[in-house]
This record gives sequence, C-alpha cells and structure tokens, in this order.
Amino acid sequence: MVRDLSHPLGPSTQVYPGDPPVEASPHATHDEDGYRVTHLSLGTHSGTHVDAPSHTEPDGRTLDAVPVETFAFDARLVDCTDCGPRDAIERAALPETDAEMLVLRTGWADRWGTDAYLDHPYLAPDAAAWCAERGHHVALDALSVDPTPTPNAAPGEPDGVPAHHELLGADRLVVENLTNLADLPGRFTLRAYPLPVAAADGAPVRAVVEDAE
Amino acid sequence: MVRDLSHPLGPSTQVYPGDPPVEASPHATHDEDGYRVTHLSLGTHSGTHVDAPSHTEPDGRTLDAVPVETFAFDARLVDCTDCGPRDAIERAALPETDAEMLVLRTGWADRWGTDAYLDHPYLAPDAAAWCAERGHHVALDALSVDPTPTPNAAPGEPDGVPAHHELLGADRLVVENLTNLADLPGRFTLRAYPLPVAAADGAPVRAVVEDAE
Repeated sequence: MVRDLSHPLGPSTQVYPGDPPVEASPHATHDEDGYRVTHLSLGTHSGTHVDAPSHTEPDGRTLDAVPVETFAFDARLVDCTDCGPRDAIERAALPETDAEMLVLRTGWADRWGTDAYLDHPYLAPDAAAWCAERGHHVALDALSVDPTPTPNAAPGEPDGVPAHHELLGADRLVVENLTNLADLPGRFTLRAYPLPVAAADGAPVRAVVEDAE
Repeated sequence: MVRDLSHPLGPSTQVYPGDPPVEASPHATHDEDGYRVTHLSLGTHSGTHVDAPSHTEPDGRTLDAVPVETFAFDARLVDCTDCGPRDAIERAALPETDAEMLVLRTGWADRWGTDAYLDHPYLAPDAAAWCAERGHHVALDALSVDPTPTPNAAPGEPDGVPAHHELLGADRLVVENLTNLADLPGRFTLRAYPLPVAAADGAPVRAVVEDAE
C-alpha cells in the first residue's frame, strides 16, 4: 500500500496569506475539442509543497539545482501533537537521530481549510538552527515552519521567517502542508519528488510513503 | 541513484497544439516580501504528465479517483527507436509480458522543443486495443499516443484520438512526454505520482526510476 500525504489542489485549497489562489478552469472540452484539458493557476507554494533554499535566500539554490535523489528522504517522525495553537516546537522536543529529515507531526492537518489552520505551532528559531547544524531537512503537517501572520499573533513570537532562514540558509529543504501522518512508523522514506519547475523557489508535490502499513 | 524521466516546466516548455502555455511570473519577491513565490499558469497536460480516463472519456475516472498506489507502475521497456516520423507502432512490435505498463521508447525526447517533436511515432489503434485488453497502461517519450495534428500528417493516419479512446476507455492510464529512457533496464518501477489536482483530467508529474543504475 502507498499512503498519500498530500492535500488535494483545487479552488478550495487553503493558501498562505497573500499567495495566489489555486484556480482550475476548463480549457478544452469533450463537446468542443474531443478531449478535456484544464487550465491551472497556482503559486509554487500551494498545497503540499517543497521549499527550495531560494524561497527565502537570494543566493540559495533553486529547486532544479537539487539532485532528484534528494527528494526520497530518510525520515524520522516526531510527535508534536501536545503543542497548542501558536506554540513553539523547542529544541528539547527533537530527537537525536541519524535520519536525514525530521517530520514534525503537529496534528494541524485536521484543521486544514479553516481559520484555525493558520494558528499552527512553529519551529523555534534555535531548534531550526539545531536541525540545520545536524544536517536535517524538516517537514511538517502545517502551513509553515514559522508563525503565520494572523490577528492571533502572541507576544514573543519571532518576526519574519527565521526558521526558514536557519534551514534554507544552510541549504536544507522544507516540506510543508503534509497530511495523513497519524500511525506512521517512526522511521520511513518520504518520497516528495516536486514538479520540475525551472529555476523555482519551490513546487507543489505529491508526497507519499510506500509500505506504510 | 534516482533517474529523472521528466522534462523541466517553464516558459520554454513545448506544449500540445492549442494547450495553454506554461508561464511563471514573480508573485512575492525577496526585496518586497522577504521571500520569493512564483505564480504558475499551465495546462493539466503540460510537460511530463499523466492522462486520467476523463481526459477523453466523458464518463471516465478523474485523477483523484485513481488509488495512489496505481502510480508506482511495474513497467516493461519497449524499444521503438526504429520508428520514423509519424510511423505507427504496430501490435507486432509489442511484447507479451505480465508487466502492468508498457513504456514505449521512440527516441523522440531528443527532439523536445523543436517542430520535429510534433511528428512523433504513435500507437496504432489496434495496438492500443490490444494493450487495453491485456490490461496494460502505456507510457512513452513523445507528445501523445495518437498522431499530433501538423501540416506533415500522412495519408492513412487515424483521425482524432483513437488510441486514447482504446486505453482511457478501458480505464487504463497514459503517461506522455517522458525523457531519459536510454539504457534503462528492461523492467523497472516507474514512479509517476501526479499532482493531486481535484477532479482532474490529468496532471503534470515528476516521473522517476529509482535504482536505475
């Protein structure tokens, strides 16, 4: 069996504040053309997606400069489901592991499509720095590794995108908006081969785990 | 090692005549926003992509109705490199095999981005019917399993999209615009997990072969 860790992409797909909406409109139709083709309009960080270093680093690598084998990640699951809204995931919550990637399960995927999805836990900047130093890529089932700006922002929250800078500045990768992380084994291969968008800052992906159960 | 079988997606991506062009434009920028996001506009059949049955069959399954494990195809490579421009790939060229998918290597990927790419070999309708009857999905390194309309159309070529109808009408899948098929083993797993576009007639994909060499 293959487990799908991706949210569907369509007009109801929730996006990061300010990002382009996901739009899908008929381009060719069975009646007029004999086949159906759809015109898609979306941002590179729509739905389940990979951030390339160039997303936040002007001199960072674009997605096509990352060798394709990188995207089959040897991943360690980290249970962060005790975090509440806008809580920081601290260094102490992260395990020592030789896995390439930490997959942070916050449980926030259950709130996908609602305002509450924006008030997700985030990775504390020093925890992100520790991940970068250890060479870890980071993935999570939430909108961003940094706090998403909302009216509910709490005192003491970091400004900007410091966890992104720590990770992408160290040439690590970030995968956001995963779903379906419950009951995964502790260690697995996350396959997240992104669309081969030329010179991109990131791209949507169909993320899967094979042999998950 | 992982081998990438996908063409890059960008403004220079060659598309099927009449399909939307692939466009990429800056949406957020490092200078203005502190991060870079790109706005993409493209058709569901851009670059390397999967055709869902609904592409040519009004009552065919949409892509999201196909279980995700389907897209890790047990594939058999078929050498069709002796075919010339607009030649038919006949039933006699296809092997008896218990593989789920036939991957037809025409060599046409070398012509990607040129007018000559449009004059690719195609699957004869009765060969497509034979594939469907045997339960095979079909992939190839060319723009379409049917002849692409160009001024070079030859007498006796089928009209419309009969190979698509044979395959998609039998609920099989088609993968088009593969590249990098030279020196693959005769049997391999083609991973072609498409973007999870809701209710789609097809979607672009990052197609790969793991352990190809």
